[in-house]
Amino acid sequence: MIITKQGSDVYYIAEGTVVTPKGFQAAGVHAGLRYAKKDLGVIVCEVPASCAAVYTQSHFQAAPLKVTQQSIAVEQKLQAIIVNSACANACTGERGLKDAYEMRELCAEQFGLQPHLVAVASTGVIGEFLPMEKIRAGIKKLQPSHLQEDAVAFQTAILTTDTVMKKACYQTTIDGKTVTIGGAAKGSGMIHPNMATMLAFVTTDANISSSSLQDALRSITDVSFNQITVDGETSTNDMVVVMASGLAQNNELTPNHPEWPKFYEALKQTCEDLAKQIAKDGEGATKLIEVRVNGAATDEEAKRIAKKIVGSNLVKTAVYGADANWGRIIGAIGHADATVDPDHVDISLGNIVMLKGSEPQPFSEEAATAYLQHKEVVIEVNLHLGNGTGVAWGCDLTYDYVKINASYRT
Amino acid sequence: MIITKQGSDVYYIAEGTVVTPKGFQAAGVHAGLRYAKKDLGVIVCEVPASCAAVYTQSHFQAAPLKVTQQSIAVEQKLQAIIVNSACANACTGERGLKDAYEMRELCAEQFGLQPHLVAVASTGVIGEFLPMEKIRAGIKKLQPSHLQEDAVAFQTAILTTDTVMKKACYQTTIDGKTVTIGGAAKGSGMIHPNMATMLAFVTTDANISSSSLQDALRSITDVSFNQITVDGETSTNDMVVVMASGLAQNNELTPNHPEWPKFYEALKQTCEDLAKQIAKDGEGATKLIEVRVNGAATDEEAKRIAKKIVGSNLVKTAVYGADANWGRIIGAIGHADATVDPDHVDISLGNIVMLKGSEPQPFSEEAATAYLQHKEVVIEVNLHLGNGTGVAWGCDLTYDYVKINASYRT
Repeated sequence: MIITKQGSDVYYIAEGTVVTPKGFQAAGVHAGLRYAKKDLGVIVCEVPASCAAVYTQSHFQAAPLKVTQQSIAVEQKLQAIIVNSACANACTGERGLKDAYEMRELCAEQFGLQPHLVAVASTGVIGEFLPMEKIRAGIKKLQPSHLQEDAVAFQTAILTTDTVMKKACYQTTIDGKTVTIGGAAKGSGMIHPNMATMLAFVTTDANISSSSLQDALRSITDVSFNQITVDGETSTNDMVVVMASGLAQNNELTPNHPEWPKFYEALKQTCEDLAKQIAKDGEGATKLIEVRVNGAATDEEAKRIAKKIVGSNLVKTAVYGADANWGRIIGAIGHADATVDPDHVDISLGNIVMLKGSEPQPFSEEAATAYLQHKEVVIEVNLHLGNGTGVAWGCDLTYDYVKINASYRT
Repeated sequence: MIITKQGSDVYYIAEGTVVTPKGFQAAGVHAGLRYAKKDLGVIVCEVPASCAAVYTQSHFQAAPLKVTQQSIAVEQKLQAIIVNSACANACTGERGLKDAYEMRELCAEQFGLQPHLVAVASTGVIGEFLPMEKIRAGIKKLQPSHLQEDAVAFQTAILTTDTVMKKACYQTTIDGKTVTIGGAAKGSGMIHPNMATMLAFVTTDANISSSSLQDALRSITDVSFNQITVDGETSTNDMVVVMASGLAQNNELTPNHPEWPKFYEALKQTCEDLAKQIAKDGEGATKLIEVRVNGAATDEEAKRIAKKIVGSNLVKTAVYGADANWGRIIGAIGHADATVDPDHVDISLGNIVMLKGSEPQPFSEEAATAYLQHKEVVIEVNLHLGNGTGVAWGCDLTYDYVKINASYRT
């Protein structure tokens, strides 16, 4: 097993998945919603797990999200998550809601669970109904295990046109016990348009209450999943769910636990890792763009500016074209809703300083172009106003983005 | 002269330009800032004109905008506007400001005016200094006249990579006098990237105070220029300037004048016409998209939702691909900062109803695709919440947008 120390006593587990934390099993099958690819997956926990979730802020929350919220509301516990790709079950009215409840029911039956311990997630085309016959038959085929290959099957089943699987696993030690966190995610790829949903599922064997887990997830989401953008769109189905089995047998984690920062850091690294994988695999993307903003009035404003830059079509096309065009970064900062002193801004691309105190600096275009041809590009901005810092991640805007999204659904 | 009645006693003048209103002359020359195209233009008024202006909300306001604000502050009058393309004179610090003042000075000298009666505008690359030798020589070559060809020379001189000139002219009658409004604008085309500036210059012979003109311009800008988007970017140099010579000799217009609504309507139509021309000629665009939102809680929210839809990369690529993908419109509405009842939304493309009361409606894909192949596409949304209405304009997102913006500056 490849283990890499990440600082703060957090270790990266290269082969880790959602079944690496104690108590979790997974499966993924081809239920026939799509031609050949696996399209239905499940994560099951041996015990009712503490849980936390965050949901899309879209006004049009899809049916499965409503059902998941209902489930969690009962006793803040989950024991399974059932996920399908190909159909989002969004904008499907009463029938959609009924279908999502049935999906929950069937999953509960299959694994002998109470229905309110099951979360439901869907990703795919908006405005179409779930093919319930296929879902019913598919759920019966799900045979979760602790095996790596079943975790991979789950990772595959949740994808749409993502070009790569997204997973992460980190470990730390709490009360002398090894605590593991594993995650799987999908990003916004599209075969049929509208499949731009971000889903992430995180498992851990930490012993932690649902309320502490929810607090941690909410604040971590703000600096990880909420700081990525592929095209500025928010899906009707975005959701992140965490389940904690408690089987690591540490003393219950709360923010007052002396080793809370280690758990928090491990969960944050898991989420940030998954978020960056989603950004990097954005539709048509060839590069990951990381924007770091320092010296802002507040962290909130730093995050907002970083996201504005990384979301700018002009910055994204410039990175695609390896054009060291800092004027576009100025353009994006210029219309961010944040305090900016226009006379004291620094901008760098990697180690190449472009602007210092808002004065253009001489730089080698050749070196800048060479830097921008890397697969990961870092833009740094210092506003010299305060101590606010923020990071955001995105990808370049390419011909393929247009190609993927201009194609007919039919 | 082709004259078309527009309702409310407002007439469209097909051949009208900025020199059609009484008292205005224009010129455009090649000063050598660009290889061959005209790049320096001026509008001059016979008399000190009442004036109004609105400026970019970017934190990084370019030097010429600062100088123009200074000019207008003195006595709320303007007698000339000098404009160059190719260099934005933005992010150029003290030297840039000095250059903009010199440009104002030289223009005043050339036409025997007081410097504070001159407005300055620039559009082009950010972070480069104005080539002042060329500007000095160019200003000496400016010989404005009332001739149509000189208005066309001005219209050309302000363009960057716009593919067409933008102009509009409307007439109405106030106190039995013909009042004419003419306008010229440039949009966001790029040869060198960063040239994404929107400039509009409007002339009128109406007799109106600067303060009434400013009130009208501000409220009209909110429903015209501020409701277009090509790529969600705001330039450092955006500016709209109106000059009113008063030579139509109507009684002074104020909001209390009985025929104020006619003037307001004519100015609104001029601005809306220019705004739509800019949207239609967005970078790489093949289609104009108009989004009309009705039934919102307020006009403000209707405008916000309309702009969100028309600014969505996913909607823009779907229109480019003639894909009747209403799920993307739902996506855009879903994350608009506005009140939405997710169960009562109607969406139409032209006359084709896609969604009614948030229920998908059967429609002919063939008819929808055919409709989306038009050069002008209308998306209508009804939220059934209140009486708020708003319209926004934009364009499709195409391979050419990426091509234009991914190309190297050098």
